[in-house]
Amino acid sequence: MIEQIEIELPKLSRGFHIITHYIADALGVKPDIGLLNVHILHTSAGLTINENADPSVLVDFESFLNHIVPEQMPFVTHDMEGVDDMPAHIKASLVGSSVTIPIKNRRLHLGIWQGIYLCEFRDRPHRRNLVLTVYS
Amino acid sequence: MIEQIEIELPKLSRGFHIITHYIADALGVKPDIGLLNVHILHTSAGLTINENADPSVLVDFESFLNHIVPEQMPFVTHDMEGVDDMPAHIKASLVGSSVTIPIKNRRLHLGIWQGIYLCEFRDRPHRRNLVLTVYS
Amino acid sequence: MIEQIEIELPKLSRGFHIITHYIADALGVKPDIGLLNVHILHTSAGLTINENADPSVLVDFESFLNHIVPEQMPFVTHDMEGVDDMPAHIKASLVGSSVTIPIKNRRLHLGIWQGIYLCEFRDRPHRRNLVLTVYS
Repeated sequence: MIEQIEIELPKLSRGFHIITHYIADALGVKPDIGLLNVHILHTSAGLTINENADPSVLVDFESFLNHIVPEQMPFVTHDMEGVDDMPAHIKASLVGSSVTIPIKNRRLHLGIWQGIYLCEFRDRPHRRNLVLTVYS
Repeated sequence: MIEQIEIELPKLSRGFHIITHYIADALGVKPDIGLLNVHILHTSAGLTINENADPSVLVDFESFLNHIVPEQMPFVTHDMEGVDDMPAHIKASLVGSSVTIPIKNRRLHLGIWQGIYLCEFRDRPHRRNLVLTVYS
Repeated sequence: MIEQIEIELPKLSRGFHIITHYIADALGVKPDIGLLNVHILHTSAGLTINENADPSVLVDFESFLNHIVPEQMPFVTHDMEGVDDMPAHIKASLVGSSVTIPIKNRRLHLGIWQGIYLCEFRDRPHRRNLVLTVYS
């Protein structure tokens, strides 16, 4: 069995946001055993799995990525859409554009402290679209 | 066909460790053609695929990640569990929390030099749990 | 349904290259709904998904990775194959060794601006082999 749906997230500000609930809710009834692939259809935002409890983790992630991928790096030439343009592409490839998560007992089988993050790398909030594909 | 099992690795010290054999052994008989997804249920350890031959590669990986994600970065605020806490989360998202590997002829179809790494980012050794899901 | 094929890319120079067309062509007829996993069988090249329009993005990616993973870092000990050896392994794990892409309406369901990149991290061009596995 394979099922695929597409969802649009609400506009989220630059930074890291926990979106596990949007995804779990959109899927509805899940199989006993399966795998969920979540793919983001954009190149200046990413997806990752990390700590879902302390909001300071989300802030520290944003600070760290700004630290290793600062704006106005001297060698960057792709800046048509502003100084946040190329750094956003780089950050997207560092975290990745999809996550795959086991399904067990009709639930996303994440670790106790794991949540799914939307990583928005552009200054201007965007509507981001995700493709959710479930195998069972 | 879909099968899912969970395994607990032995406690491994901070650093990079080849765990291909634990995974291949736990799976037992594998299908002719398939895909294996390995997901780690933790947020301060990660999984990646890299060179399985020279132990110095494992050491250099640990050195490199400590170099770009040092402890006591001035902007970090999440340090409840010590100075290795937030760096461990960041490193986990840089390498990722799952790997997907083709299965062919009843074996993991990795390149000759490829092995699966457990990346332990905390100072204190932890027991890490993996979910193995096989499609065929 | 599961299908698996293996392809060899043409030799590509050090840098980032869009390879979406090689993959889509090799797959031939695709299912209505499915998932494609692309896995690279090497440890000094990687795969990622990013911007497919402006060639300057490819150049900036190469510049950025050389910037954060320069050659001749003082702590590196694995240099049997030259100064580009260990940096290539590190870069491979930062971008990853596989990508998973939804299939919809018999096409790879990528975002408008998304393409699949082969990231060649060695100085000498190599022939790189990919395993393509399609579930439907």
